[in-house]
Amino acid sequence: MTPVRPRSAERRAEILRAAFEVIAERGYRGASLAAVAERAGLTQQGLLHHFPNKAALLVAVLEERDRWDTGGSGATGRAAWRLDLLATLVDYNAMRPGVVQTFSALLGESVTDDHPARDFFTRRYARVRADMAGVLRAEFGERLPGGLTPERAAPLLTAMLDGLQYQWLLDPEAVDMAAAFRDFLGLLGVEEGK
Amino acid sequence: MTPVRPRSAERRAEILRAAFEVIAERGYRGASLAAVAERAGLTQQGLLHHFPNKAALLVAVLEERDRWDTGGSGATGRAAWRLDLLATLVDYNAMRPGVVQTFSALLGESVTDDHPARDFFTRRYARVRADMAGVLRAEFGERLPGGLTPERAAPLLTAMLDGLQYQWLLDPEAVDMAAAFRDFLGLLGVEEGK
Repeated sequence: MTPVRPRSAERRAEILRAAFEVIAERGYRGASLAAVAERAGLTQQGLLHHFPNKAALLVAVLEERDRWDTGGSGATGRAAWRLDLLATLVDYNAMRPGVVQTFSALLGESVTDDHPARDFFTRRYARVRADMAGVLRAEFGERLPGGLTPERAAPLLTAMLDGLQYQWLLDPEAVDMAAAFRDFLGLLGVEEGK
Repeated sequence: MTPVRPRSAERRAEILRAAFEVIAERGYRGASLAAVAERAGLTQQGLLHHFPNKAALLVAVLEERDRWDTGGSGATGRAAWRLDLLATLVDYNAMRPGVVQTFSALLGESVTDDHPARDFFTRRYARVRADMAGVLRAEFGERLPGGLTPERAAPLLTAMLDGLQYQWLLDPEAVDMAAAFRDFLGLLGVEEGK
């Protein structure tokens, strides 16, 4: 017997997919619940049954995004960063510009005043920096081959991932995001196969 | 005799200042001409006398921002990138979070569909990458001390500047943007005083 997936979970997944698309197109501030509901084939009332307000929908979108990146590691969105998978993640992102666009638009908006994603991103980056530093220390000890400590390399790794995404989204012909990220791993001295 | 600054230019500068603030707070999509006019102490009609629409105001804001960074190099916004000034620019940015916030919010929004800043940023980054590569080549030849060619280092430099700004805006206590950028210049092998 195959387990029956609850209808409500399917509907929820459809709403998140629709929200992803609408946020990629218009940003969070430009996205309306009406537009998301229409995209998902629901009434706005039907959408509100699953997500009580726009901010709740946004947080669910962000958590879903983190869940994808960590291979379904669960609702905490806790990333199991693996150094050898970082370059692969960038390759993967290069095949899904819509997801990268949603994330990049939200990151940009999150620095404006009182944005509902601000706390999410602040906590996420603190966690990602700490996780990355831990992974680097486990593999290389107190100093990477390129000379930096794990704690000083971690914010640079994170910044490079984000910064390259903007240049790539704006001009994918001009910027090879995956090759550029591998160049950076080479500078740190942590590239694969060396 | 001191030259008299035209009243219209003063008014225009006030409007740009107001637009900067409102965009930092709400993003471009969330900013209204009415809010900018109110902040500048004008009627909306008065604002429209200087800028015919919201997109025109946005472009003027972006050009003004580039002009500041290049020390008033003129309306083309053409940056005279100097390697020894890049780290200083980051120090300077760390003292003006409002300007960084406006820029970072606009960069984030620019990747959403049909955004009026998209062309500006696409052209700006192509130009900045080319300028940076030229400056690096003039100083280091075909290969930087860290091993990369000027063309491969340029997108990394740009990405690092942008990516660090987001982490710093979200959590200024946790991320020392200027120190982190100097760490990156060290990886490239182009830091000052070495």
